[in-house]
Amino acid sequence: MADIKLYDFPLSGNCYKVRLLLSMLGLNYESIAVDLAGGESLTEEFKKISPRGQVPVLVDSDDSIWDSMAILSFLARRYGDKTWFPEDDVDNAKVMQWLAVSENEILYGLARARAVFLFKRPFDLTQCQDDGHIGLIAMDQHLSHNKWLATDFPTIADIACYPYVSLAHEGEISLKDYKNVRRWMDDFEALSGWVAIT
Amino acid sequence: MADIKLYDFPLSGNCYKVRLLLSMLGLNYESIAVDLAGGESLTEEFKKISPRGQVPVLVDSDDSIWDSMAILSFLARRYGDKTWFPEDDVDNAKVMQWLAVSENEILYGLARARAVFLFKRPFDLTQCQDDGHIGLIAMDQHLSHNKWLATDFPTIADIACYPYVSLAHEGEISLKDYKNVRRWMDDFEALSGWVAIT
Repeated sequence: MADIKLYDFPLSGNCYKVRLLLSMLGLNYESIAVDLAGGESLTEEFKKISPRGQVPVLVDSDDSIWDSMAILSFLARRYGDKTWFPEDDVDNAKVMQWLAVSENEILYGLARARAVFLFKRPFDLTQCQDDGHIGLIAMDQHLSHNKWLATDFPTIADIACYPYVSLAHEGEISLKDYKNVRRWMDDFEALSGWVAIT
Repeated sequence: MADIKLYDFPLSGNCYKVRLLLSMLGLNYESIAVDLAGGESLTEEFKKISPRGQVPVLVDSDDSIWDSMAILSFLARRYGDKTWFPEDDVDNAKVMQWLAVSENEILYGLARARAVFLFKRPFDLTQCQDDGHIGLIAMDQHLSHNKWLATDFPTIADIACYPYVSLAHEGEISLKDYKNVRRWMDDFEALSGWVAIT
């Protein structure tokens, strides 16, 4: 039986990615709230498990993994069937491509634009929004002729991209020109185990 | 026999990652120069193989992969021995952790700071430098008691992090406070198959 703890923050889209996969895999876990506003993630104690001072961190018995992308990969490989992160080398690379988009245009575009409004972070809003649209345009084009991002099934690439896309409006980025992205979001929200961010 | 083509740009650190791994794996390939300054990567034709309009793109016979992280993973899985991207789920997650650093603090910190000077890109230099130092501090701490980033052997995580760290000075980010990072760079440059960026 898995003994899983998630160092967590409710409003974090990166933590939400992990909560989504845990739920979709049907795994029980303990959520441990980290007081980001109070600086808890930046303490030397916390940096022992997360060197960049960030959530999420997943602890599974004796194994401790930081970074949302690494945690998604770890959980899919350890607990998922092969569809979540396929072993075929081309399908696997396609998942990696969209994981990269989730870490680039989506995180440094959409998520940072949201952080400007939500957490008063001092990022260049126009740059963030421009970066975000590059990612959204690529996604929308791809999703015009593909149901999911990487393969014929939902993968951790869909999970990695969904949170900050679904929250794009909080960074004043509209999805009105991205009808295929909106269709994909609807399909994603219909998956068994989908949960809202809070 | 592999029939590999790399859509390439000499000064791109992301292309350099792929050239390093191809060389370290002893794979022959054809480098196809893409005229970034002339806008070639942003044409509709090029976006058919690279939806974000970026290099590198790798074509291996009938398979076409965009994004440096995806290409590193693809090449290591298809052609490498298991040390480059291990299958053990914890070791694999450790590689993914540092791939995330390469896509986050290193790409949006160190690489963007370099792009401000080298390509006159309009990024917030102070923000880029601050982001870069978060990544370097985490790397230096980790490398104070580990020879390589993810396992006891060099992995694609080392390859993904090395280029923009070794070029940090071009973004006016000094490595003088990061002696463990400098030691790791020396070890990396001693690996069989290491090549300079140009």
